Amino acid sequence: MTQAASDSEAPASPVSDFHDQHVGHRLKLRRIAIDTYRENVAYLHRECSVYRAEGFQALAKIVVSCNGERIEAVLNVVDDDKIVTPDELGLSEQAFSQLCADEGHDVRVAQAEPPASMDAVRRKIGGERLSYDDYIAITRDIADRRYSKMEMAAFLVATGQNGLDRDEVLLLTKSMLATGNRIDWNEPLVADKHCIGGIPGNRTSMLVVPIVAAHGTLIPKTSSRAITSPAGTADTMEVLARVDLLPETLDKLVRLERGCLVWGGTTSLAPVDDMLISVERPLGIDSQGQMVASILSKKLAAGATHLLLDIPVGPTAKVRHMRDAMQLRKLFEYVGDRLGLYLEVMITDGRQPVGLGIGPVLEVRDVMRVLENDPGAPTDLREKSLRLAGRIIEFDPDVRGGQGYAIAREILESGRALEKMNRIVMAQGVQEQKIELGKLTYEVCAERAGSVTHIDNFFLARIARLAGAPISKGAGVDLLKKLGDKVEQGEALYRIHAEFPSNYDFACDFVRQRTGYELGEFDKIPRGYVEF
Amino acid sequence: MTQAASDSEAPASPVSDFHDQHVGHRLKLRRIAIDTYRENVAYLHRECSVYRAEGFQALAKIVVSCNGERIEAVLNVVDDDKIVTPDELGLSEQAFSQLCADEGHDVRVAQAEPPASMDAVRRKIGGERLSYDDYIAITRDIADRRYSKMEMAAFLVATGQNGLDRDEVLLLTKSMLATGNRIDWNEPLVADKHCIGGIPGNRTSMLVVPIVAAHGTLIPKTSSRAITSPAGTADTMEVLARVDLLPETLDKLVRLERGCLVWGGTTSLAPVDDMLISVERPLGIDSQGQMVASILSKKLAAGATHLLLDIPVGPTAKVRHMRDAMQLRKLFEYVGDRLGLYLEVMITDGRQPVGLGIGPVLEVRDVMRVLENDPGAPTDLREKSLRLAGRIIEFDPDVRGGQGYAIAREILESGRALEKMNRIVMAQGVQEQKIELGKLTYEVCAERAGSVTHIDNFFLARIARLAGAPISKGAGVDLLKKLGDKVEQGEALYRIHAEFPSNYDFACDFVRQRTGYELGEFDKIPRGYVEF
Repeated sequence: MTQAASDSEAPASPVSDFHDQHVGHRLKLRRIAIDTYRENVAYLHRECSVYRAEGFQALAKIVVSCNGERIEAVLNVVDDDKIVTPDELGLSEQAFSQLCADEGHDVRVAQAEPPASMDAVRRKIGGERLSYDDYIAITRDIADRRYSKMEMAAFLVATGQNGLDRDEVLLLTKSMLATGNRIDWNEPLVADKHCIGGIPGNRTSMLVVPIVAAHGTLIPKTSSRAITSPAGTADTMEVLARVDLLPETLDKLVRLERGCLVWGGTTSLAPVDDMLISVERPLGIDSQGQMVASILSKKLAAGATHLLLDIPVGPTAKVRHMRDAMQLRKLFEYVGDRLGLYLEVMITDGRQPVGLGIGPVLEVRDVMRVLENDPGAPTDLREKSLRLAGRIIEFDPDVRGGQGYAIAREILESGRALEKMNRIVMAQGVQEQKIELGKLTYEVCAERAGSVTHIDNFFLARIARLAGAPISKGAGVDLLKKLGDKVEQGEALYRIHAEFPSNYDFACDFVRQRTGYELGEFDKIPRGYVEF
Repeated sequence: MTQAASDSEAPASPVSDFHDQHVGHRLKLRRIAIDTYRENVAYLHRECSVYRAEGFQALAKIVVSCNGERIEAVLNVVDDDKIVTPDELGLSEQAFSQLCADEGHDVRVAQAEPPASMDAVRRKIGGERLSYDDYIAITRDIADRRYSKMEMAAFLVATGQNGLDRDEVLLLTKSMLATGNRIDWNEPLVADKHCIGGIPGNRTSMLVVPIVAAHGTLIPKTSSRAITSPAGTADTMEVLARVDLLPETLDKLVRLERGCLVWGGTTSLAPVDDMLISVERPLGIDSQGQMVASILSKKLAAGATHLLLDIPVGPTAKVRHMRDAMQLRKLFEYVGDRLGLYLEVMITDGRQPVGLGIGPVLEVRDVMRVLENDPGAPTDLREKSLRLAGRIIEFDPDVRGGQGYAIAREILESGRALEKMNRIVMAQGVQEQKIELGKLTYEVCAERAGSVTHIDNFFLARIARLAGAPISKGAGVDLLKKLGDKVEQGEALYRIHAEFPSNYDFACDFVRQRTGYELGEFDKIPRGYVEF
């Protein structure tokens, strides 16, 4: 077609081509101020000679190389000289920063081959067991950003559900660990905790870390930001302090205070995990095997030697039945033991949110009330945090089995936990903006009298997100009633907070049909799933 | 963070918000000249009030609505006012044309919910059998572009390999058919042929269509362009004639000439199939069930009542063993019979390319030599085409079983097939550009003497693609020796043609290591897989 038109321009003698080709491949690098998140995108003008000669297809993957660096990117074709000219290659923010070259620099482009390890993924789709070499090849290709979102989705689905036996989970964990950096704290006991999630509120880390650090046990806690939940520990901690610290600062701080509460995303630990999560979450797929590999590789990369895992169980929790929790526990233990991690699992009550607030500012309020020994502090958050902290304190060989809880309580009640939290906040850098609770409020009331017999975790998390959490930190839901509480008709069950009118409206619309609460006879409350 | 800073600007009273919200949501539509292929992309400025208030994440899906139309798009965040300003919403070419609105028009945006049918996909990942309603929901969501590439990949992997039993293949085919348009030719016999692919050259459709149409049987052939192969029938036909016709023109033409050779992509038949293929091919996954659903839904949508399927078998063909070909045949028959399609399968020789040329111009040369009864015409292409055409002619109730081949040969030898081809080319519109064979040539020679015992289809297809085919129509590979031919040392096996130096170089580099031919004793040639 159009290509054929320039046929006559092709040099007659093949001998001279070698040079021409290399000239033809060279383009000037341009940074395109488009944020394509975790996907590299390259922009080529439709009239660009390379595009025309190579027969690239839109959305094909190309290799861009410069100064020995090479990255892969998905190709978008541009028809506007203001975005890129035919002599330029544009790269999205992510791709540009990854290539580490200046604008205007000469770059070369070529069609990218599909990653070689996709062959192993296809074998996995066919039902084969993969080897350690296969997993290493796959995770290395993912880490090098050679996988497109589609290819990652194919890998996740093929290894999802019952796709991985427990030895493969171990191999996948090892290979994820092998393809990232790993911190060595040079101490015999580096404690960590992790909750598999699904319960709104539940901000126990912000209590466990100061208590455990005040005891003297090293607990360098890195947390995620929320992806599908209304707040991650990093989002909540950010109300009080900076959470994006440089590795050097972090190291000094942890040595001094024995603990921190920072965002894990700035480090390059287990990069493959971050990339897989960016596909897994929007797809809403997750399997036990992938969860175990994801959590354990991340914790081991962060240098943990001892880990306490919190698995909440409840009808609207991520894990709904005790038998699933037990199966998950066995899998964690199997993999953890084989990787030299001292691991304990606590199965906890996941029938309702923990604490009263859902959303960063509200959760900070709950946490501070517990730290300040305020009589109005939510008792469930306080109790759960003390139990978790107690178990971690017992990782200390000098603590007698069964004494952890009492030590934790003493640290909290004496004010040492609050003091430690203040020191950590100061060390990380006090949040300078005054972040306040959203002023637009709406109370959701009971349509009949009764006792609260059921609270839907997913539903309440959704309201808080619609209200703007976690990006709008003052947004969220404040629970006024919890399981077992008696409610009069017309009495408020919870209060929605929003900062912005549009969010406010979304959240209020959402609760028009149902409240997420069930009211009934007191004795209809499902029994606790878990006995502490 | 930054959101919280504008907290004080939020109106104090929720009553007035309703209005403000709707103002806040309105943006001006802008067309962004970026081709994102089959994926809708929306561009929002980072400072856009909607982006800030909604807490969208980059790569999240948003809904854009305008005048009752609504589309979904992946969000890219822009930091450059020259691309979009904070008051605008930019849409990539595809998304813009889908929304059917003018630039500057008011549009509204909101966060998109994941497609409801992803729930069924997750059940499929879990190993469940899905119902017709599930498949309808999935295909409808895909047709409405509610699925991201990732979500389509998840669906394909979950239903790939042994993921579909034959009744599910039937349900998937039916639902793909139900979610697109369907042509009704109002004739009792509408013939079609299809080859499952994998064999370079093999341009039989360009011979079968004129022969069958000259007999008087209606054969409105729509073909694809090459995706991973060096030429599709549409790419090759385009050397002679226009292939992108409007539906009205097409209809008139087919009624008049009884046949056509056009590109299927301009029609809206089985749109889901096109979208799934755009994910399946780059992933390199494909399963029998998906192939059958894809082919049969497309053919039925195009109005076929009778279909001849060509399944080539050979060591480097898509189907490598006779037992797999038989299994595939049964599946085609099972689904075809239940959808009222008269279907026959021909298992053919796939041990080597069919014809001599690989690449659009070279394949046209082969086809024209056969049509012109040129003594130098490739006999394998001629024979195979006559056999296929013969079988289709026998769909005609007035033709006695076993007479089709003789009728086809008579049509070819009498020149009526050539005449019909010329009429079809005229009716579709003669290609005005003179498209010539690539002038950069390179001959690949035998390193030893012997008989050709093996030709690697994949390898030769790859060379032709590297040489520039199908976009560079004059590029390709011209086979000088085929299976069984005797070769002297240093004698040329095939000739590479390229139009552009860079392509030429890629292709020549590629053949430095191996030729794709094996030479040996004459009696070592693998026996034909198939007996005609």
